[in-house]
Amino acid sequence: GFARLDHHRGVRKHFPEVIYGPGKTVEELTKICASFLEKKLPLLVTRVEPSRAEILLQKFPRLSYSPRARLIYFLPEKTEAKGFILIACGGTADLPVVEEARICAEAFGNKVEVIVDVGVAGVHRLVPELPKLRRARVIICVAGMEGALPSLLAGLVDTPIIAVPTSAGYGANFQGVAPLLTMLNSCAAGVAVVNIDNGFGAAYLASLINQLPERVFSRA
Amino acid sequence: GFARLDHHRGVRKHFPEVIYGPGKTVEELTKICASFLEKKLPLLVTRVEPSRAEILLQKFPRLSYSPRARLIYFLPEKTEAKGFILIACGGTADLPVVEEARICAEAFGNKVEVIVDVGVAGVHRLVPELPKLRRARVIICVAGMEGALPSLLAGLVDTPIIAVPTSAGYGANFQGVAPLLTMLNSCAAGVAVVNIDNGFGAAYLASLINQLPERVFSRA
Amino acid sequence: GFARLDHHRGVRKHFPEVIYGPGKTVEELTKICASFLEKKLPLLVTRVEPSRAEILLQKFPRLSYSPRARLIYFLPEKTEAKGFILIACGGTADLPVVEEARICAEAFGNKVEVIVDVGVAGVHRLVPELPKLRRARVIICVAGMEGALPSLLAGLVDTPIIAVPTSAGYGANFQGVAPLLTMLNSCAAGVAVVNIDNGFGAAYLASLINQLPERVFSRA
Amino acid sequence: GFARLDHHRGVRKHFPEVIYGPGKTVEELTKICASFLEKKLPLLVTRVEPSRAEILLQKFPRLSYSPRARLIYFLPEKTEAKGFILIACGGTADLPVVEEARICAEAFGNKVEVIVDVGVAGVHRLVPELPKLRRARVIICVAGMEGALPSLLAGLVDTPIIAVPTSAGYGANFQGVAPLLTMLNSCAAGVAVVNIDNGFGAAYLASLINQLPERVFSRA
Amino acid sequence: GFARLDHHRGVRKHFPEVIYGPGKTVEELTKICASFLEKKLPLLVTRVEPSRAEILLQKFPRLSYSPRARLIYFLPEKTEAKGFILIACGGTADLPVVEEARICAEAFGNKVEVIVDVGVAGVHRLVPELPKLRRARVIICVAGMEGALPSLLAGLVDTPIIAVPTSAGYGANFQGVAPLLTMLNSCAAGVAVVNIDNGFGAAYLASLINQLPERVFSRA
Amino acid sequence: GFARLDHHRGVRKHFPEVIYGPGKTVEELTKICASFLEKKLPLLVTRVEPSRAEILLQKFPRLSYSPRARLIYFLPEKTEAKGFILIACGGTADLPVVEEARICAEAFGNKVEVIVDVGVAGVHRLVPELPKLRRARVIICVAGMEGALPSLLAGLVDTPIIAVPTSAGYGANFQGVAPLLTMLNSCAAGVAVVNIDNGFGAAYLASLINQLPERVFSRA
Amino acid sequence: GFARLDHHRGVRKHFPEVIYGPGKTVEELTKICASFLEKKLPLLVTRVEPSRAEILLQKFPRLSYSPRARLIYFLPEKTEAKGFILIACGGTADLPVVEEARICAEAFGNKVEVIVDVGVAGVHRLVPELPKLRRARVIICVAGMEGALPSLLAGLVDTPIIAVPTSAGYGANFQGVAPLLTMLNSCAAGVAVVNIDNGFGAAYLASLINQLPERVFSRA
Amino acid sequence: GFARLDHHRGVRKHFPEVIYGPGKTVEELTKICASFLEKKLPLLVTRVEPSRAEILLQKFPRLSYSPRARLIYFLPEKTEAKGFILIACGGTADLPVVEEARICAEAFGNKVEVIVDVGVAGVHRLVPELPKLRRARVIICVAGMEGALPSLLAGLVDTPIIAVPTSAGYGANFQGVAPLLTMLNSCAAGVAVVNIDNGFGAAYLASLINQLPERVFSRA
Ligand SMILES: Nc1ncnc2c1ncn2[C@@H]1O[C@H](COP(=O)(O)O)[C@@H](O)[C@H]1O
Ligand SMILES: Nc1ncnc2c1ncn2[C@@H]1O[C@H](COP(=O)(O)O)[C@@H](O)[C@H]1O
Ligand SMILES: Nc1ncnc2c1ncn2[C@@H]1O[C@H](COP(=O)(O)O)[C@@H](O)[C@H]1O
Ligand SMILES: Nc1ncnc2c1ncn2[C@@H]1O[C@H](COP(=O)(O)O)[C@@H](O)[C@H]1O
Ligand SMILES: [Mg+2]
Ligand SMILES: [Mg+2]
Ligand SMILES: [Mg+2]
Ligand SMILES: [Mg+2]
Ligand SMILES: [Mg+2]
Ligand SMILES: [Mg+2]
Ligand SMILES: [Mg+2]
Ligand SMILES: [Mg+2]
Repeated sequence: GFARLDHHRGVRKHFPEVIYGPGKTVEELTKICASFLEKKLPLLVTRVEPSRAEILLQKFPRLSYSPRARLIYFLPEKTEAKGFILIACGGTADLPVVEEARICAEAFGNKVEVIVDVGVAGVHRLVPELPKLRRARVIICVAGMEGALPSLLAGLVDTPIIAVPTSAGYGANFQGVAPLLTMLNSCAAGVAVVNIDNGFGAAYLASLINQLPERVFSRA
Repeated sequence: GFARLDHHRGVRKHFPEVIYGPGKTVEELTKICASFLEKKLPLLVTRVEPSRAEILLQKFPRLSYSPRARLIYFLPEKTEAKGFILIACGGTADLPVVEEARICAEAFGNKVEVIVDVGVAGVHRLVPELPKLRRARVIICVAGMEGALPSLLAGLVDTPIIAVPTSAGYGANFQGVAPLLTMLNSCAAGVAVVNIDNGFGAAYLASLINQLPERVFSRA
Repeated sequence: GFARLDHHRGVRKHFPEVIYGPGKTVEELTKICASFLEKKLPLLVTRVEPSRAEILLQKFPRLSYSPRARLIYFLPEKTEAKGFILIACGGTADLPVVEEARICAEAFGNKVEVIVDVGVAGVHRLVPELPKLRRARVIICVAGMEGALPSLLAGLVDTPIIAVPTSAGYGANFQGVAPLLTMLNSCAAGVAVVNIDNGFGAAYLASLINQLPERVFSRA
Repeated sequence: GFARLDHHRGVRKHFPEVIYGPGKTVEELTKICASFLEKKLPLLVTRVEPSRAEILLQKFPRLSYSPRARLIYFLPEKTEAKGFILIACGGTADLPVVEEARICAEAFGNKVEVIVDVGVAGVHRLVPELPKLRRARVIICVAGMEGALPSLLAGLVDTPIIAVPTSAGYGANFQGVAPLLTMLNSCAAGVAVVNIDNGFGAAYLASLINQLPERVFSRA
Repeated sequence: GFARLDHHRGVRKHFPEVIYGPGKTVEELTKICASFLEKKLPLLVTRVEPSRAEILLQKFPRLSYSPRARLIYFLPEKTEAKGFILIACGGTADLPVVEEARICAEAFGNKVEVIVDVGVAGVHRLVPELPKLRRARVIICVAGMEGALPSLLAGLVDTPIIAVPTSAGYGANFQGVAPLLTMLNSCAAGVAVVNIDNGFGAAYLASLINQLPERVFSRA
Repeated sequence: GFARLDHHRGVRKHFPEVIYGPGKTVEELTKICASFLEKKLPLLVTRVEPSRAEILLQKFPRLSYSPRARLIYFLPEKTEAKGFILIACGGTADLPVVEEARICAEAFGNKVEVIVDVGVAGVHRLVPELPKLRRARVIICVAGMEGALPSLLAGLVDTPIIAVPTSAGYGANFQGVAPLLTMLNSCAAGVAVVNIDNGFGAAYLASLINQLPERVFSRA
Repeated sequence: GFARLDHHRGVRKHFPEVIYGPGKTVEELTKICASFLEKKLPLLVTRVEPSRAEILLQKFPRLSYSPRARLIYFLPEKTEAKGFILIACGGTADLPVVEEARICAEAFGNKVEVIVDVGVAGVHRLVPELPKLRRARVIICVAGMEGALPSLLAGLVDTPIIAVPTSAGYGANFQGVAPLLTMLNSCAAGVAVVNIDNGFGAAYLASLINQLPERVFSRA
Repeated sequence: GFARLDHHRGVRKHFPEVIYGPGKTVEELTKICASFLEKKLPLLVTRVEPSRAEILLQKFPRLSYSPRARLIYFLPEKTEAKGFILIACGGTADLPVVEEARICAEAFGNKVEVIVDVGVAGVHRLVPELPKLRRARVIICVAGMEGALPSLLAGLVDTPIIAVPTSAGYGANFQGVAPLLTMLNSCAAGVAVVNIDNGFGAAYLASLINQLPERVFSRA
């Protein structure tokens, strides 16, 4: 086989392997989807363009697809969601990444809430959301342009923050480098950063953190 | 005054303000230290060169100083350490950052263990440490050169990992850019990254995560 | 002569030439200072290291020197200050640039107020300053680390903002590149940016803006 | 709703929110346009590709569109233009940015004049324009390639200059990085810089400056 | 002629010239292919897009084409393969480069084996392959994302490793810069690096190394 | 202990661990040297500044030190040198790296020859060396400035070439980035690259290649 | 008019203005071409894509077009070519730039010869061309990939060399940055560099140099 | 010997080898100087720090040294200077590079004139120099900060211009990268660029150009 699927990862890690879509042919994706569906394993395939997704959904009607997140997913049984992850973002242009993070975090068995459009340019819109931001166990903070939102949040709450820079912007934004640097240099402590546009990675880490108490004894 | 010290931060955040040493004159640091000591507040001043530290320690004998971490600290009462943070690093050259992270994490009230010299070049040295790595509630993974250690760990355990790239290396390392990029691109999920050499920031976030269960009700 | 001093600039521009210190020998600086003092022209020499400044001040006791701003200045007659420029900064590490901007702006004939330590990490410290921020005719906003302060201010007031990134920071700060990019990408409108650490340049432009009404008729 | 429109911004800021087009679906843009038109608010949507603009203009015939500036606009009542902003650019390739700046500046209630093709390569073409350049209250200077025009202007006039680097060029131009750096390093004082191709941002700040005298008392 | 083909290179070097496809017109490629086929020389043309390849294969049915590797090849006589080169890669997204390296290495007269999907994220999948990795005379290690596989291998075996970073990844991967830096900074010795996506170059050098003993006397 | 020395590496790899000097205190280096000397293991410590080396050599008179290569070494028994590695460099400024490579390669048990000053700027000096270049089993090619020497050599011989860019140069050399890129883009095949100034790494890989025939059976 | 054509430049400079195609609408190009043809001025329009060129050539049948160079040209009277410029390049992929340089140089009134495919990888192909290279008054040296050809030539001849890096290459070539840096760092003196792919700029400067003796008295 | 001096270069090139100082020990420089002095060859050693120069001048009193240019030189017989090279620079900070260029150009047998302090910020200072600028056979234009002077000059004269970016500046100047990019992107034709601070390289090329007519027959 072209790929060694790592079905046992569900034992070692708390979710079966998440498939990275780019660079795989539709034939390879078809085989992977079939293999997961057959074993009734939950499945996530990231970064699948609509035209490729369409072919797969025609073959496997049980699959779902979010065009905004470019995400194919199949979640056989709804696990009872635990804890509560909050995803906050600055503007509409960040929604693809928010969506990827939200679907993934739910797939990993978490309760998720989303706050859109609380960018730094309109701080007054952030204030009414503070109670909810403080209630969350972990915050995923998605921001493009200059990416200052995580710094602002970290000055207001002491919830762990996972910052996701997005490639939304132009010119000296350099496809997300500007917000990436902003987030890495946050002078407010309590922030760590994942790759540009990496909604999945943020959701995975947030899920590990959110589920910490439950899993604390079951590990050896 | 030249600086608005934020003594109330201890209420909102779980530690009084941590002072960033560079750019402050010895006179300013003296005033800050006096103000904290007087209020019996725990104190951390990061990145203080030995020559400047010496002056401060002569004035305030109650202060401690780690030359390797370039850290001044004063911890009035030993809080009972909770949970358990593990700090792993690749090599001796990463020790200054490990030390900064360790002292800070202990100051924030956490139990800390350190594993040195488990770099990617000697994977066999990592294996006997796996049980301890799995027992930790959160891992701070410090690495310079190519910075591959967090990727490796994330493939082996499902503990949240905070990766700290260090500036140890030369040439195409670009003062820590190489390990920073490595860590941001980790193909193993469960890793987020803080700034190059930022041991303090990693300790702060790790502490927030480690103490999640205890603080979950005390917040509004 | 090694340098064509541009004494007529005071007519065309609203201040005689400001001298850039680096790269000039002490002999050259001596000649320049003598030439200005003799003509009773106001004088600013930027970026002069203390050891070089000391030699010049011994020769010309009428000169003043700010070691923090590394600025030599001679202001023969106190012009009646007009309008009001506000300089805000995030932290103590930005003070050298604040100082350079303040002395220059005063030398150009402006009233200046300074607000220190209102960084993004402590937004609550910014609120009591809002009335003063709104009263200013133009704001110079100095910030290092991630440099998010100008974005925050631009969302709160509609005063023109000149943002100055500083080289305060480390690692992925890249000597001021991170705040520079943040400021260029500000999603709140009303911000323009000058070079890293360029307090003088910000003061010059702020002065042009502040004095607009008075000068509007005297130009042809 | 997907987006929190900030209709009150017109009170706090001197124009209702300007919409950033990229990353919004046509459906979202439709809702936003409808909401603004209904309230008879002036509307600007930046960076809308012709194909997307066509759909919106068919739905809302009252909207206007500039294909060169990729700008949708609706300006219900012609405010009496105040003051005078001058936009100067080096060459034809900068016209899209000039156009974005011009329409925005007029929408913000300013009188605008445009001078095209006065690049550094033909200094003699600049001389006859000097009187007009000196009459302006503020200059927006748009330049691609090496972006030297703002330096040149700042040596000739003492009008505040907002420099806009454009992505016009190739090779070591790096999509506008070369003129961006040129402008940030201007050895002639009186220049500040906005993001590459950010005609809107330049117009917004120029408008704030241009309208300073009128607004000086109405603020609290 | 537009190109000086270097048919004698087969004498000086151990393979006739390999043609770099990009930038050549289909007419030029046609002439080159005809010239090689006529002389019964083995032929490799790299980086040929499917649409261009199709035209060439219709003209010259003896040519073969790998769409994944974008490689046209003609190998008149199967040389008896000597030695043994192992190609290892992290994931499916690296397969185009693996394929280019494999076909080239076989064309140069080597026995080749391929191991797919042994990325750092699943170290346990690497262990069963160790005996084969140790048997190889030289390893070509292809990896995208963070590119940590060569470091890991170099810590486990003492076979010469040629590392090939691939452009598979996104965001802070910067089209292969991240794995390139990782590989250059490998803290495990025994690794050298070729250009991003350069499967051909890796195969050429691996072939030179693999065939060393046989050629050691035949050279002067 | 602070460092897990890997004395068994001599079994797995063909040389005991090579110590990276920077970041280790003199005390740590002292312990490491003592431990190696006691076990009569060959020892290499790279990048040791003269002042630190002096202290160590006074403690351990059996150690040798090359100030140009900044290398401490102890080679208890002269192994019979096998094969033949050629090190070629462009100019005098590359000698520190040449020296590091030469001592390391000899320590690893190889015969080494060095050709200095055959830079691209004087091709005629290269011609008389061609027979020797062709006789070598592997070439280490060290070059700073523009780093074109490996390309030139690879067009003339079909010996495997390990290219080492050096940081010798200034301005747009960017501390070795220019020759690094030159070498990675070599249009002549047969070249792979190690980190800037990494003479040790080049010697290690060259040694693995040079000793291939002898070790081919002893591995499992 | 949208553009101030600089028809007098032919007096001050030795060729009427050369038009930069990108960013101009077809309507604007039409007006420019008409204006030049009407005045019987020689005309060069660079970087015109075939589809746009086709429209212009249908309107103005007197225009010529080179699709490889993407250059439109009209040269009313063949000036008697003076002197002799040699254009040398490394490979077929550089031909678009060679072509742009050749047509431009001929348009400026120079005799031009072209040598293709003398790349560094095949030095032996360069030797028979040395007499011609030495006869030239000035050499334009075009190279992509690692761009080492100018260094090599400058070591062999003492003719002034204008080096043109091209964007031919991939990966760490960074669209021409690698050869640009190589050429700027040339350790052989006698080389200066123009922008990536700037065949026109190289031709213009080469022409100025080539025609120096003739023009030496006619200037004031 | 450690270095193959290329004394015959004077025949092939029009000056004996110029020695690059950095990376050579004082002993090596001593040997080189002795060897040149003995043969009565003219000698140039670039980039020699004052402390090293002092030692050499004590040994060889016939040598001269310019501390500003960090240049050691020995010019046995004053050749009759031919032609005329003009060196123009923007400000005092560029003088070290101007000085290196001037001494080298004179050493190569050229008449040289220097114009200082004609930067873009004071265009009016350039006008009186235009006749001299037009009389020159070739211009070396040295500029730091934003480096716009060559663009400006190229718009005013049609003399070949060799542009030298200097590292004078700070912040987003990036040690000369900003003026380097400006010069490469010059929208005025007739400019080519050498490495940052490379006064020697500019002088060498300018000399080749300046002496073209005289040497045109003596070459084969
Ligand atoms: N080493 C460090 N790295 C990053 N941030 C720090 C460091 N030390 C202190 N800080 C943060 O910097 C801020 C203090 O800045 P200051 O007011 O200048 O002392 C605090 O909010 C700290 O959280
Ligand atoms: N072309 C543009 N460049 C930069 N900022 C813009 C642009 N257009 C709109 N904006 C700003 O972006 C914000 C709107 O973002 P959004 O809420 O996503 O529409 C507003 O605050 C505008 O000031
Ligand atoms: N994919 C490739 N990557 C790097 N170099 C290549 C590639 N394919 C061919 N080459 C080299 O490029 C040269 C051919 O260039 P050309 O004469 O333009 O076909 C040959 O010397 C090959 O060794
Ligand atoms: N300052 C300089 N910048 C660039 N190249 C130089 C410089 N000084 C000398 N060179 C060149 O470097 C080569 C000498 O290198 P080396 O053999 O190391 O002395 C000669 O070919 C000179 O042309
Ligand atoms: Mg909004
Ligand atoms: Mg070790
Ligand atoms: Mg503070
Ligand atoms: Mg024009
Ligand atoms: Mg070829
Ligand atoms: Mg996989
Ligand atoms: Mg030499
Ligand atoms: Mg001056």
